[in-house]
Amino acid sequence: MAKRNLTPKSENMSEWYVQTIQQAQLADYSPVKGCMVIRPNGYGIWEGIQAALDAELKLLDIQNAYFPLFIPYSFLSREAEHVKGFSPELAIVTVGGGEELAEKLVVRPTSETIMYEMYSKWVQSHRDLPILINQWNNVVRWEKRTYFFLRTTEFLWQEAHTAHVDHQEAWDMVLNGLEAYRKISEEFLAVPVYQGRKSNSEKFAGALLTTTIEAMMPDGKALQAGTSHDLGQNFSKKEAFNISYQNAEGKTDYAWQTSFGLSTRSIGGLIMTHGDDDGLVLPPKIAPIQVMIVPAVNDNDRVQEHCQLLRSELVKIGIRAKVDKRATYSMGWKLNDAELQGIPLTMAVGEREIDSASYQVKVRFSGEKIAITQEKFESDIPQLLNKIQADMFAAAKKRTEELTTNVTTYDEFKSTMETKRGFLRAFWCEDEKCEAAIKEETKATTRCLPFVDRAGNVAEEKGVCVKCGKPATHRWLFAQAY
Amino acid sequence: MAKRNLTPKSENMSEWYVQTIQQAQLADYSPVKGCMVIRPNGYGIWEGIQAALDAELKLLDIQNAYFPLFIPYSFLSREAEHVKGFSPELAIVTVGGGEELAEKLVVRPTSETIMYEMYSKWVQSHRDLPILINQWNNVVRWEKRTYFFLRTTEFLWQEAHTAHVDHQEAWDMVLNGLEAYRKISEEFLAVPVYQGRKSNSEKFAGALLTTTIEAMMPDGKALQAGTSHDLGQNFSKKEAFNISYQNAEGKTDYAWQTSFGLSTRSIGGLIMTHGDDDGLVLPPKIAPIQVMIVPAVNDNDRVQEHCQLLRSELVKIGIRAKVDKRATYSMGWKLNDAELQGIPLTMAVGEREIDSASYQVKVRFSGEKIAITQEKFESDIPQLLNKIQADMFAAAKKRTEELTTNVTTYDEFKSTMETKRGFLRAFWCEDEKCEAAIKEETKATTRCLPFVDRAGNVAEEKGVCVKCGKPATHRWLFAQAY
Repeated sequence: MAKRNLTPKSENMSEWYVQTIQQAQLADYSPVKGCMVIRPNGYGIWEGIQAALDAELKLLDIQNAYFPLFIPYSFLSREAEHVKGFSPELAIVTVGGGEELAEKLVVRPTSETIMYEMYSKWVQSHRDLPILINQWNNVVRWEKRTYFFLRTTEFLWQEAHTAHVDHQEAWDMVLNGLEAYRKISEEFLAVPVYQGRKSNSEKFAGALLTTTIEAMMPDGKALQAGTSHDLGQNFSKKEAFNISYQNAEGKTDYAWQTSFGLSTRSIGGLIMTHGDDDGLVLPPKIAPIQVMIVPAVNDNDRVQEHCQLLRSELVKIGIRAKVDKRATYSMGWKLNDAELQGIPLTMAVGEREIDSASYQVKVRFSGEKIAITQEKFESDIPQLLNKIQADMFAAAKKRTEELTTNVTTYDEFKSTMETKRGFLRAFWCEDEKCEAAIKEETKATTRCLPFVDRAGNVAEEKGVCVKCGKPATHRWLFAQAY
Repeated sequence: MAKRNLTPKSENMSEWYVQTIQQAQLADYSPVKGCMVIRPNGYGIWEGIQAALDAELKLLDIQNAYFPLFIPYSFLSREAEHVKGFSPELAIVTVGGGEELAEKLVVRPTSETIMYEMYSKWVQSHRDLPILINQWNNVVRWEKRTYFFLRTTEFLWQEAHTAHVDHQEAWDMVLNGLEAYRKISEEFLAVPVYQGRKSNSEKFAGALLTTTIEAMMPDGKALQAGTSHDLGQNFSKKEAFNISYQNAEGKTDYAWQTSFGLSTRSIGGLIMTHGDDDGLVLPPKIAPIQVMIVPAVNDNDRVQEHCQLLRSELVKIGIRAKVDKRATYSMGWKLNDAELQGIPLTMAVGEREIDSASYQVKVRFSGEKIAITQEKFESDIPQLLNKIQADMFAAAKKRTEELTTNVTTYDEFKSTMETKRGFLRAFWCEDEKCEAAIKEETKATTRCLPFVDRAGNVAEEKGVCVKCGKPATHRWLFAQAY
């Protein structure tokens, strides 16, 4: 359905977001509280993310598998922090096949426990390691306040879970996972991110250390867009899941583990980052349809056939092109609809265009109209799509930089957080009390301590904590967050 | 892990089946009763089925989407037959986020009700039809006795749900869905099937009519491998989900609907159909790895590099090839393992093979060893894979035909069912009493009334019911079934 009465993004991003999602038919509210329906237009974006990320994971030799949706309640408590973190959010099955269950089953909020119970069974010798397994599945975390894509009780994601013979190999995998997320976010979704590590209070329940990619939304709020965890031996130790093996020297050792996940939440970040007052704007690499061909008239065989011909030519050179064939809608309605959907390029085709073999290609991102002759399709269209992808990333990168502010005093911190928000880069003593006080007073949390390289190193500097004035050695990124 | 003590298939297929699945690491028992873990080797087969079937569905203009895992309990009862059919099998969530739920939530056993509630909201005018949506997801049906892949409490599948303006268009879609299943089963899995319609007692709970593909396993038991339902207006009518719209004449009309699904059960049929005493045998089109290259020695750079070179050459011509690089296993162990995994072709590579540029390619299906020179890879390997695919289908087809027997008397029916089993083709009066009596006495159920063409027509003949002797007009297929 084409747009009607869309609240301008600049006026009220939150209203705009919900309206755009519904009008562009990306998702809809469901009759189940906190759960949404992902409609074909939204799911197509998820399929694009899946294809791109799955290829990255396969490059890391990670294979897909499937583990049960249900987890015996007792499993969760084997790792103390894990159960503490997830208990308040659980959906619990108490009846199966008409009978009260002896042991209640948890609908997975994440799969560490059920997977590691199996890993424990599969790992006997160092020859059984590494285990490199990923799942694409649905998880459930009961949420009180939900928001399309960003926070829903049920969501879709991938969760990779690896087990290694030593900590270094595991840590390399943590960083490889994070790098795959950066690549998907920046190179496909055109959403720039900071990579870094979480504070202790913000890390995953059960992890030794959590790494993250953090993006900045246009309204100055941050979005955590993917996390990769160093689980150490917390889950593999004897008292937890006992993933033990004979090492090369014949002694008993415990596996070093990682887990990392990226979810449908990333679609929310994509929508917010690029959308404009006319609706969605999709980067070409992730757009399910890259070029929409719109016949100027519906009841003209020559025009209809030529549209199909143009589509074939584009498909042949690897472009995702489609003809909007719907006979009951006008050209104007269809062009409007393609705009709302955020399709990168649209092309109206009538007798005049066919006669001249030249087409006005409209760029969704910039609004430009570019004349391209049919004989130059093969060179000009892919080039144009690449340029749009690069321009969209550059624009988002520029905004993220503008929304990243170095602050030294707490007054500066507070006033910036009240006016422009964004990422505040500030020294913090790493005492949880200061972190909690800052959160209480400004709603800003530590988002991450940014990495300065791909090895996960951070900048060591000398300064004083923005809150308490005690010595501090790292500048952290703070922000209000979705 | 390579095979050890595999019970011969010919001796005890059921034991062989469970052992092969575990030893080839296709799946494993999980700590959750009735749920299995699909390991990477098994999930790779499912990914192949997904890719092939998803392409078929997209040819039918069906798009993927995602609907909630949970369904309010009250929704199920809106279609009387539907709730009757599924009630005994439900898993029910009664607690969410630490609180007792006001309305219990059912973990979806299938998604008609939650999807059609949304369809009702989306469909206002005939311009909103057809709706052509598919989901790839997990569903839960509580099972007392479970069996790897064939019957598990949770399973993976796709469920397509379409809504149309008239019955003919819906019926065409029912048949198109069924034809897609035949294609996947016969052309990819090399598992021959009969297409036909179910009896009233065997149809889907809530359907007007159910169509099915039915395969014959080597032990003489049938496997229902995919079903496609004509739902008529049972779910769209006012008292159910009220999927109504203004038709072109401005009058209120109700949508005609279909649903069709194919699940991980098809992997069970694949394993049983083709496996032999040495383990799995995979048809090339669905095999995640088509050619396994095994270095004759592990610590020889020339051999290792040449293996990678051969792999690249094969990958370049579209063959899924892999080198078994595991340094801690011997060549013999690896060849054994590839055999157990059912990989269509294996190729051991040592100095001698490299020097002669000629390789012994072993065919898993026939046991043949064929010498192929490197310069003929491009023509000979794809040709060989195609031949294996055709040979495997032909062998399975021949066996299915041998296991299909025309019977006229009930004595013949009973004795055949006691000796060779298989499909029995027999006249039936279509009275449910005869069907129930036959089931009671022989454990055989009506599998389908076979179609004679792609339009879903059946052969009209004159005969007498094999059970009661009353006039009958159709020969049905009966069999004991998984």
